[in-house]
Amino acid sequence: MSNPVTFVNVIDVEPAVIQDVIDVLEEGTQQVMSKRPGFVSATVLASADKSRVINIARWESSAHVKATQSDPAAADYARRTAALGTVAPGLYTVVGEYSV
Amino acid sequence: MSNPVTFVNVIDVEPAVIQDVIDVLEEGTQQVMSKRPGFVSATVLASADKSRVINIARWESSAHVKATQSDPAAADYARRTAALGTVAPGLYTVVGEYSV
Repeated sequence: MSNPVTFVNVIDVEPAVIQDVIDVLEEGTQQVMSKRPGFVSATVLASADKSRVINIARWESSAHVKATQSDPAAADYARRTAALGTVAPGLYTVVGEYSV
Repeated sequence: MSNPVTFVNVIDVEPAVIQDVIDVLEEGTQQVMSKRPGFVSATVLASADKSRVINIARWESSAHVKATQSDPAAADYARRTAALGTVAPGLYTVVGEYSV
């Protein structure tokens, strides 16, 4: 049974460090997250006013996310991100999907 | 020249009304947004703790978003959404995209 989940981290930042946050997310995704079992895809969004970054990562299941969060390498990237701004991580499910 | 943008609305809600927010977003997207010029796709996410909904909509350009925001039918859905929670709408750009 497949129960895909989406891990979202809404990160409020000072505009001066937004690129640092983007860089940490890129490195963490490429070096650690994308190599973990259950990783599907990730998208990183930066607000036009440079005050917020949103990391949206799809995983095969919440168990895969939980296992990743207890991986020391992943936890290190989470700590580095949290040190740069105010983070609001959480698990989400897709409740609507629309395209033309 | 194509300059795609992503409109994101982070909506904090009381768990009791999360389904109402999801329903308004679904109706607005199907009836209005998806028929507007420049609409590409939308994804609606609901947090596992039922406290937050995130509407992520891709558009061909910020001009298309601006034009949509001045459409009375679209503005009405924005008002209905805002009446149900605390909204934080904004324009974003994709700064990272990763998949396995």
